[in-house]
Amino acid sequence: MKMSEKLISAEEVVKHTTSESCWVVLYGNVYDVTEFLPSHPGGSKIILQLAGRDATEEYDPIHPPGTLEENLKPEAKLGKIDPQTLVRTTKTAAKEEKKGVSADEIPPMESLLNLDEIEQVATKRMPEKAWAYYYSSSDDTFSKSFNNKVYRDILLRPRVFIDCTRCDSSTTLLDHKVGLPIFVSPAAMARLGHPDGEAGIARACAKFGAMQVISNNASMTPEQIVADAKPGQMFGWQLYVQNDRAKSEAMLARINRMRDRFKFICLTLDAPVPGKRELDEKQNFKNAVTVASGVKTASEPNRPGGGGVGQQLFFGTASDLTWKVTLPWLAKHTDLPIVLKGVQTHEDAYLAAKYAPQVRAVILSNHGGRALDTAPPAVHTLLEIRKYCPEVLDRIEVWVDGGIKRGTDVVKALCLGAKAVGIGRPALFGLGAGGQAGVERTLEILKAETETCMRLLGVEKVSELSPRHINSRKVERDIFEGDAGLETFGLWDKVKSKL
Amino acid sequence: MKMSEKLISAEEVVKHTTSESCWVVLYGNVYDVTEFLPSHPGGSKIILQLAGRDATEEYDPIHPPGTLEENLKPEAKLGKIDPQTLVRTTKTAAKEEKKGVSADEIPPMESLLNLDEIEQVATKRMPEKAWAYYYSSSDDTFSKSFNNKVYRDILLRPRVFIDCTRCDSSTTLLDHKVGLPIFVSPAAMARLGHPDGEAGIARACAKFGAMQVISNNASMTPEQIVADAKPGQMFGWQLYVQNDRAKSEAMLARINRMRDRFKFICLTLDAPVPGKRELDEKQNFKNAVTVASGVKTASEPNRPGGGGVGQQLFFGTASDLTWKVTLPWLAKHTDLPIVLKGVQTHEDAYLAAKYAPQVRAVILSNHGGRALDTAPPAVHTLLEIRKYCPEVLDRIEVWVDGGIKRGTDVVKALCLGAKAVGIGRPALFGLGAGGQAGVERTLEILKAETETCMRLLGVEKVSELSPRHINSRKVERDIFEGDAGLETFGLWDKVKSKL
Amino acid sequence: MKMSEKLISAEEVVKHTTSESCWVVLYGNVYDVTEFLPSHPGGSKIILQLAGRDATEEYDPIHPPGTLEENLKPEAKLGKIDPQTLVRTTKTAAKEEKKGVSADEIPPMESLLNLDEIEQVATKRMPEKAWAYYYSSSDDTFSKSFNNKVYRDILLRPRVFIDCTRCDSSTTLLDHKVGLPIFVSPAAMARLGHPDGEAGIARACAKFGAMQVISNNASMTPEQIVADAKPGQMFGWQLYVQNDRAKSEAMLARINRMRDRFKFICLTLDAPVPGKRELDEKQNFKNAVTVASGVKTASEPNRPGGGGVGQQLFFGTASDLTWKVTLPWLAKHTDLPIVLKGVQTHEDAYLAAKYAPQVRAVILSNHGGRALDTAPPAVHTLLEIRKYCPEVLDRIEVWVDGGIKRGTDVVKALCLGAKAVGIGRPALFGLGAGGQAGVERTLEILKAETETCMRLLGVEKVSELSPRHINSRKVERDIFEGDAGLETFGLWDKVKSKL
Amino acid sequence: MKMSEKLISAEEVVKHTTSESCWVVLYGNVYDVTEFLPSHPGGSKIILQLAGRDATEEYDPIHPPGTLEENLKPEAKLGKIDPQTLVRTTKTAAKEEKKGVSADEIPPMESLLNLDEIEQVATKRMPEKAWAYYYSSSDDTFSKSFNNKVYRDILLRPRVFIDCTRCDSSTTLLDHKVGLPIFVSPAAMARLGHPDGEAGIARACAKFGAMQVISNNASMTPEQIVADAKPGQMFGWQLYVQNDRAKSEAMLARINRMRDRFKFICLTLDAPVPGKRELDEKQNFKNAVTVASGVKTASEPNRPGGGGVGQQLFFGTASDLTWKVTLPWLAKHTDLPIVLKGVQTHEDAYLAAKYAPQVRAVILSNHGGRALDTAPPAVHTLLEIRKYCPEVLDRIEVWVDGGIKRGTDVVKALCLGAKAVGIGRPALFGLGAGGQAGVERTLEILKAETETCMRLLGVEKVSELSPRHINSRKVERDIFEGDAGLETFGLWDKVKSKL
Repeated sequence: MKMSEKLISAEEVVKHTTSESCWVVLYGNVYDVTEFLPSHPGGSKIILQLAGRDATEEYDPIHPPGTLEENLKPEAKLGKIDPQTLVRTTKTAAKEEKKGVSADEIPPMESLLNLDEIEQVATKRMPEKAWAYYYSSSDDTFSKSFNNKVYRDILLRPRVFIDCTRCDSSTTLLDHKVGLPIFVSPAAMARLGHPDGEAGIARACAKFGAMQVISNNASMTPEQIVADAKPGQMFGWQLYVQNDRAKSEAMLARINRMRDRFKFICLTLDAPVPGKRELDEKQNFKNAVTVASGVKTASEPNRPGGGGVGQQLFFGTASDLTWKVTLPWLAKHTDLPIVLKGVQTHEDAYLAAKYAPQVRAVILSNHGGRALDTAPPAVHTLLEIRKYCPEVLDRIEVWVDGGIKRGTDVVKALCLGAKAVGIGRPALFGLGAGGQAGVERTLEILKAETETCMRLLGVEKVSELSPRHINSRKVERDIFEGDAGLETFGLWDKVKSKL
Repeated sequence: MKMSEKLISAEEVVKHTTSESCWVVLYGNVYDVTEFLPSHPGGSKIILQLAGRDATEEYDPIHPPGTLEENLKPEAKLGKIDPQTLVRTTKTAAKEEKKGVSADEIPPMESLLNLDEIEQVATKRMPEKAWAYYYSSSDDTFSKSFNNKVYRDILLRPRVFIDCTRCDSSTTLLDHKVGLPIFVSPAAMARLGHPDGEAGIARACAKFGAMQVISNNASMTPEQIVADAKPGQMFGWQLYVQNDRAKSEAMLARINRMRDRFKFICLTLDAPVPGKRELDEKQNFKNAVTVASGVKTASEPNRPGGGGVGQQLFFGTASDLTWKVTLPWLAKHTDLPIVLKGVQTHEDAYLAAKYAPQVRAVILSNHGGRALDTAPPAVHTLLEIRKYCPEVLDRIEVWVDGGIKRGTDVVKALCLGAKAVGIGRPALFGLGAGGQAGVERTLEILKAETETCMRLLGVEKVSELSPRHINSRKVERDIFEGDAGLETFGLWDKVKSKL
Repeated sequence: MKMSEKLISAEEVVKHTTSESCWVVLYGNVYDVTEFLPSHPGGSKIILQLAGRDATEEYDPIHPPGTLEENLKPEAKLGKIDPQTLVRTTKTAAKEEKKGVSADEIPPMESLLNLDEIEQVATKRMPEKAWAYYYSSSDDTFSKSFNNKVYRDILLRPRVFIDCTRCDSSTTLLDHKVGLPIFVSPAAMARLGHPDGEAGIARACAKFGAMQVISNNASMTPEQIVADAKPGQMFGWQLYVQNDRAKSEAMLARINRMRDRFKFICLTLDAPVPGKRELDEKQNFKNAVTVASGVKTASEPNRPGGGGVGQQLFFGTASDLTWKVTLPWLAKHTDLPIVLKGVQTHEDAYLAAKYAPQVRAVILSNHGGRALDTAPPAVHTLLEIRKYCPEVLDRIEVWVDGGIKRGTDVVKALCLGAKAVGIGRPALFGLGAGGQAGVERTLEILKAETETCMRLLGVEKVSELSPRHINSRKVERDIFEGDAGLETFGLWDKVKSKL
Repeated sequence: MKMSEKLISAEEVVKHTTSESCWVVLYGNVYDVTEFLPSHPGGSKIILQLAGRDATEEYDPIHPPGTLEENLKPEAKLGKIDPQTLVRTTKTAAKEEKKGVSADEIPPMESLLNLDEIEQVATKRMPEKAWAYYYSSSDDTFSKSFNNKVYRDILLRPRVFIDCTRCDSSTTLLDHKVGLPIFVSPAAMARLGHPDGEAGIARACAKFGAMQVISNNASMTPEQIVADAKPGQMFGWQLYVQNDRAKSEAMLARINRMRDRFKFICLTLDAPVPGKRELDEKQNFKNAVTVASGVKTASEPNRPGGGGVGQQLFFGTASDLTWKVTLPWLAKHTDLPIVLKGVQTHEDAYLAAKYAPQVRAVILSNHGGRALDTAPPAVHTLLEIRKYCPEVLDRIEVWVDGGIKRGTDVVKALCLGAKAVGIGRPALFGLGAGGQAGVERTLEILKAETETCMRLLGVEKVSELSPRHINSRKVERDIFEGDAGLETFGLWDKVKSKL
């Protein structure tokens, strides 16, 4: 694709800020995006807010390379911006948005002793918008907090007088060897937090043999992310099915071609419609206030909340997935194993197991508390499965995520039958705190804590961990029991037959 | 009624401030209210505090139009106040009482993301007295807080892999179609908070097809409130039976005449005597301190608390209502369906169902925590009914109110069998924050949250919501079990037979 | 007894500050108390701290009139202090100790809406030492807090559609009519808090027909306290049996003579040795620091804590009381009914009932949390009795105290079977806040709250209150169940037979 | 061993700060420790940080006398430091590290009323590093807090009308008479907190007849510690088995020789690898920052956390102990009774009892919350034993430690079947607050509180305390119940047979 070399002045660009004529500057080029406005996944408003100026800093971290080429006709590129006419107000504003930690205030990663300390550093270093997007969860953040608190309510039962010199925290996932029972959950837009992005996370995972699930909304292409992967390094690809199925089919074909890296498709079910993440939406509103009123478009209705980064990413995502239709469709377009993410009841875990072997695993997840507030933590669902349909644990692998902050949390989930434990925010905060090195430190801490915990329980291998190593009675008391407790006394069989 | 045109100076009015001769200025007219003092529902003290000056600002928001004419003889109107002699000290004082938020500090309603934020704005904008009346609840505000907290203790159980593209939150109440399973509970004196008053709430409800129950102590006449109602818009009329039954009978006749709007009579049972709302009473005491000692009347005993707005409104309300006498009396004066508000035990729900079809519904309510502190939240009563007499849910509709702050709260109540969920304070705080627009925003947020919750549960219609969509085990553990748990093992049958 | 008229100068008095020669000035007279030092109930140290100066202000509020005459030989009175030589440093110091609320800052009693507000005013107005003595409880004040909190954990169950126009909160105690089911528990040293003292409390009780139990350590004589009693006003006398039984026998004889007033002897069992009230002891230590080192006596060992007012009062109290010996001894010296205060287990309640009719009632009490920290609240013991030996409630009256702050607390205890509810600190804080008027306000508030609660429960008379009016399930879950729950399954019968 | 008298200047010493040539000044002598660097238990880094200067102040409190002689060859001593050349910068720095409480601010020990107050004084007086080492616990300090909180959740059941004049809190441990059921748990490095060190604790114990278990990592030799012991004073020796078994065998031989003092070997099992004590590690990192970068050694890998005092002490400790191998080895090297410290499950208590009579007692302990966070408190393990294998209590003695702050805590543990209760931090904080006198005050308070509690329960002797004196139902509800509660219904027998 050839570039137009025409020089265009900033004074000219600034005249095009309406839905009738909308220009933006990206990577030094001037684009006319007027025609594209109605089809922008994030809505036209967000583009109009950036109209007439250099939007590279806003655009870059949330769009993988190639996005422009995919979406704009060649003639939309009008020419190059005349650099002498460009006043870098945008950049300055963006800088100020960062919370102003100079480089020499950044503590060495090795001085950070736990995930909370890493999050604190990330909170200081990341742009406020990125932080708000990562940190936010739905409504009153009950589920987000409870995801973690529920692990505190489980006690460990250390067995003593056992040789604990050796400890091996490696395991297998879908029959692939991994260095850790800890994986990186799919989370969007890593470059929002740090330029190392998803590829930086991948390089950190390589050091520990950790599995990584790449988000459908990654800020880098899958090819870029796995470019430096080590032999045997394991990835999964997260799929948000698009209303335009052809787009999803194309992406599946692309992933199928990289089957030496991507070992499964992770279909996300826990957020068919976006949750209400007020902190994220607040951020959006704050920005909107500073925009000139002229760019507001009457055609876009004011939805409650308006929508932050989270809602923009949802644009075009299908909400009509079903067991009966979507799984066969997937079978037609990939023979990679399917992992279903977002199971939150034993009923759905039971159903998933019925679809083995196409479905090889489920991830018990409430989307990090970002979808439905007061949804149950993975530990609840795990205990439900153990109580009402333990056969599920034999038929498919059960992974969990949400709320992990300590190696003891990891071990507790494994004791309850989870095969692996995912971290979403911790990886992103690691990235935000120190790029690849921050993610490495995050994994290093969790691995060390996990192994210390295993040793102090008197356990050498992950496979030895059992429910007898924990006391989850306080939590068990609160899990679902069916209407009037009848679940316990056989009603479940009736329910089962109707599923 | 003709008006006397005589001009009276403020100097003359100010001389009449005792129980022997008491004048007040209202809407530009001077009235001699001496004779009326002993029969004022709120006690004579409150009038004597305003004696000798323009009391319009205090009088207006709590008295529906026509009140003066109904209560004073024509000769009580002495003439017009000479405007040149009137120093508007009162008005200034009232202004200062407001918490001083200038108009340009008011955020746009669309920027408010949840009911707490709306309440915060209302708290700043409303006169302190109005805020104290709305906000207050009895004793230590335990029930008020618990009404909300109990919803947090119920977890949701999202089912996944279900097409959730469509979502319809409309339902029927007493066989009338409504746009929402959310209604506005009866709450007194809306104009205290904003001049839009109850009519403003009605116009907001019209936009969403929401039902509204008009308070017996509304600050506007029922005719005014329903004047702009849309076709099919549904109202209920709340009745506090008066000691002077003739007054109540007259009001019932008036409502019967508007049966195209008012679809039921809501008889309030949960506050036969006023609760102890200290915040409200404190407010009253504070005002009293600024009154000259000369106007105190020895004849009125000092009751503990003295009485705020709440206690004044109770004056004349009957406390001798009974199943056996009051329901037949009502049948004589209206054939509108009866809804009983304030049921707090399964025993009374069971009794109410016995009186179907005259009684068509109950509202489980502890009066927003304003009557008896440590009274149970509606969720407890709902769980009691499910456990001990579920047949009630088939015979009458069960509505609830109290503590609703989120769409997830609405959905949880519906899952437990409630047909609709009322909001009292949230509507008033909406009004206080932005008048009609504030109420609209309140309903808009709750509707959107409710539908997001339904979608994420995998539910399309209100009727599909079931107890399997929630985990209320933590709450069930705490509901009434009868003495020594015998309720569970058959004692209830004995109790039942004695009801 | 004739007084020596000799004038003694302060300069002379100040020379006598050792255990060899110790003089103090009391009510204008100079006493040589050297001989009395070793037998002072509070220890000699406390006197030596006051030696050589006017100790009236410290002495007066904690010694009933006649104490001097009872304990000193006539020749101990040396003469009168020469007033011209006396510098009133003590008084000034004492004044400063008060927390500096000038009279015009004292709010009118009627403006105080609940017991917490009264306590706040008392806290400001009372001398710090008195406040510390009343406020303090043992160790970490767990039981004191829990005494109140446990009432919050009980929910009320209001029955509606019941005529609640009439409400009568009067009841009978030991067959005597009282105006309230609320009584004043024995509490020492009322004059520490306010000069109205125990007689002020008695006059306040008279207005409400409330029963009062006079402390063994009252700061006034029983004769003074009951001097103004109204006909039918009911008192009890609290007995701490003295090691010197003759003293106790003399006191019993004195009470027997006032049997028109004193209707029972209340034998306190819950504090046979003093608890550890650190706040009170701290106060003592603070004062000691300001004393010249010369007056310290090596002969008194440093016990942990040293001892505040509470420990001083315990001096001479017998710790060897038993069912077998003490009850017969009491029968020999009084035929007044016996009320046992301090029962904290169902076992002891069961035993007490065995001693009916000599024992007519028990007071379930943990001494206001002042004896043993983490002792159970009365509500626990009441629930234990209901569960394991309900027959006790038929054989004797069961009263409770501790933690009462609201009328709803009173009603809950009555619902569980208590015949009356005592208040200790609330009466003293009422006294501290406003003397007799403060106690009246305290009783007025509790009576009004109690009756409002009864009305809102749909109850007219105290006798109608039943366990069905409350939901105590949350508390029941925590009461004693015997080792491994065997209490429930018959073990109790075995235990019973061994008592 | 003869000393070299050569004078060496500080200027010369300061040149030797690398792993090629490393000199330090200790007690006025200059040592070349280059050869010793690789074998230093705490790692070479910690020595290099002190290289080139007088390290006495850092070295002394954590090394028992004789350590130098044991570890360095005679020729390593190079001579005496020339005092005139030595600038005492180190000492000044160390002084400043103390939190600056001058002597006259130290309150008299008798004014401290409880263990929290003593800890507060110790916190102010101790060097920050020592405080951090003592105070720290693993991860989020959950277990440390819970160790104490669990006692608050147990209620006492005072029996009344019992002669409680006499009270005897003495008992026997392993058939030896002790004055108290309270002992001092093994805790390392007492001289870090106060120069009185372990010998000061021993002298304090002597006053109360309390047993003391000496830490394997004591800062004084066992001979020094027991030097002033009174006849009958009882000690135990804590053994951390070393990888170099010969060292442990030598130490056992040395203890065997003092069998008049040391009555048992306490084998610690609850920390086979060090826990993660972040506060302690933080301290270490803080110090490291101030060290010149030149002394960092690339050969030592950066472990997560790096390691504070706690990790240094672990160097060389064996993690391969087992029932089958270690107990026979111990039998070969000592015939002193064995006490196993760190049992945290009923399974391990059951196993320990199988090894009686070689094993005479277990200490239920989670290492003061310092090993594995969310490990169960001793009370949980005690309740497990009572429920699943009460026969253990007959076969061996069960002691507990962790979380004790009050005499009521002591009594509760005894009621549940513990024979004795250990205090670790409280003894060290007592030492830190006032040296020997502070430890005496700690024991004095606990003894007095314990006896007051016994009296108020109506109990004269320790042996009378029983489960009926407490209500532990709230805690029982949370103890381990086996997978799906099957433990209760017989599964335990199967588990047992496999142990």
